Amino acid sequence: MLTNRRTLTVEWGDCDAAGIVYFPRYFEWFDAATAALFRLAGFEKHALMKTFGIVGYPLVDARARFILSSTFGDSVDIETTISRWGRSSFDVQHRLLRGEELAVEGFETRVWTVRAPGASGGLKSQAIPAEVIERFSGS
Amino acid sequence: MLTNRRTLTVEWGDCDAAGIVYFPRYFEWFDAATAALFRLAGFEKHALMKTFGIVGYPLVDARARFILSSTFGDSVDIETTISRWGRSSFDVQHRLLRGEELAVEGFETRVWTVRAPGASGGLKSQAIPAEVIERFSGS
Amino acid sequence: MLTNRRTLTVEWGDCDAAGIVYFPRYFEWFDAATAALFRLAGFEKHALMKTFGIVGYPLVDARARFILSSTFGDSVDIETTISRWGRSSFDVQHRLLRGEELAVEGFETRVWTVRAPGASGGLKSQAIPAEVIERFSGS
Amino acid sequence: MLTNRRTLTVEWGDCDAAGIVYFPRYFEWFDAATAALFRLAGFEKHALMKTFGIVGYPLVDARARFILSSTFGDSVDIETTISRWGRSSFDVQHRLLRGEELAVEGFETRVWTVRAPGASGGLKSQAIPAEVIERFSGS
Repeated sequence: MLTNRRTLTVEWGDCDAAGIVYFPRYFEWFDAATAALFRLAGFEKHALMKTFGIVGYPLVDARARFILSSTFGDSVDIETTISRWGRSSFDVQHRLLRGEELAVEGFETRVWTVRAPGASGGLKSQAIPAEVIERFSGS
Repeated sequence: MLTNRRTLTVEWGDCDAAGIVYFPRYFEWFDAATAALFRLAGFEKHALMKTFGIVGYPLVDARARFILSSTFGDSVDIETTISRWGRSSFDVQHRLLRGEELAVEGFETRVWTVRAPGASGGLKSQAIPAEVIERFSGS
Repeated sequence: MLTNRRTLTVEWGDCDAAGIVYFPRYFEWFDAATAALFRLAGFEKHALMKTFGIVGYPLVDARARFILSSTFGDSVDIETTISRWGRSSFDVQHRLLRGEELAVEGFETRVWTVRAPGASGGLKSQAIPAEVIERFSGS
Repeated sequence: MLTNRRTLTVEWGDCDAAGIVYFPRYFEWFDAATAALFRLAGFEKHALMKTFGIVGYPLVDARARFILSSTFGDSVDIETTISRWGRSSFDVQHRLLRGEELAVEGFETRVWTVRAPGASGGLKSQAIPAEVIERFSGS
């Protein structure tokens, strides 16, 4: 499977009063890492939205396990891959590493979503095109 | 069990380019709601840290299920309660409602944490004092 | 002039590793305070955008002076008023108080903005309707 | 003068409901860019705090002019330099470019700050060491 790897430096502004990363920042980084994985697969988000007529791939479930804390100045790596493709939803897994050690694990379930004026919230799910899924096979 | 209820207005700056709440904001609100529940129980955070010598109650697990999206101008209610007390960890549940409808559910596992110069990351868990737990019984 | 007053509690997640409010949070609060002032004047943002066909009132200039720092648990008040109306731009002033003391001052210059497919960035300024300005006279 | 240059990709989560960068994010980026400039000068923040006994260099003034908006997927460059050294304060200038065009300008006045238990807020300014200033001369 296609995997995205990115390195980032923890900033002063990412940390809370205990001097460690404020946990919602991990979810922001994972969200950006999912976008980076799609970019790696050839799907820059503006183009993806235009080509497939979607408003995005909003989350229905997000989870993270926090194993080791990090502080400003630390360099961390995030590895991101898609672990499941459903008809209209998919799961993303993130591993945030400090050196060789797993520091945070993230899990997202996202839905391929289009505008639907009649539907609740004005949004509904749609089948993920096969040509999208193929690009992540990494073959 | 003691339950905290707070109402908040979704702000423009909480929303993403799809016009709905950017999901990490829910985790920020839930974190603030946990602090508000402790305040309701008589434990303002600065005092809590000083009285019990803890650096806080950082998370080891956070999860949310997103059922209905919200947009700027929406008024939402968050109900927060502690669903489990362990020896040194506890679970917090959040229900974010739009009117009568459940829009987002949040789950946190947190650890009563003290500084420990020798430990990995300089932090370690500690047993939660009985007098803390008693204040949440709501009796 | 119409003035909006709101009270907020500084949250753990608003603070940086020095234990004081991370300064971009003040700009977020001021942005929300501007929206609250418009709401007080009868212009909830979704309605404002629809009624007048604007995409919003984005900033061309933002400034803040930081006089006293605040920490989590502090209660602060924000007073917001419009200090100047131009043809298509206006200035907003914010005073963040801790008790009687001025802690932070904020200044924003904003532009009444509509979509303009041909223009640079797809946006252009437009004259602010007199009926909008009148509602802020506070008379 | 020493100048730091960094490139960043605007993320989905940096944008507001108008699809453009939510302006407080620029202040976050500029704050991180100041830290990066210090790192370039040989002063990683944890080390800086320890070596010189400071709690940091908090802001007394921050300002930005927003000229061109940016959206998710855009690549932008930030150039950062110190434009003035005072006795205990200094000014930082940031230029955020999209290609050759100046999109946002940022200005910060910061103060070299130490803990002072007796002082208001428990903090006070201190003279900036000559050896710090010398490292930014870029000679």
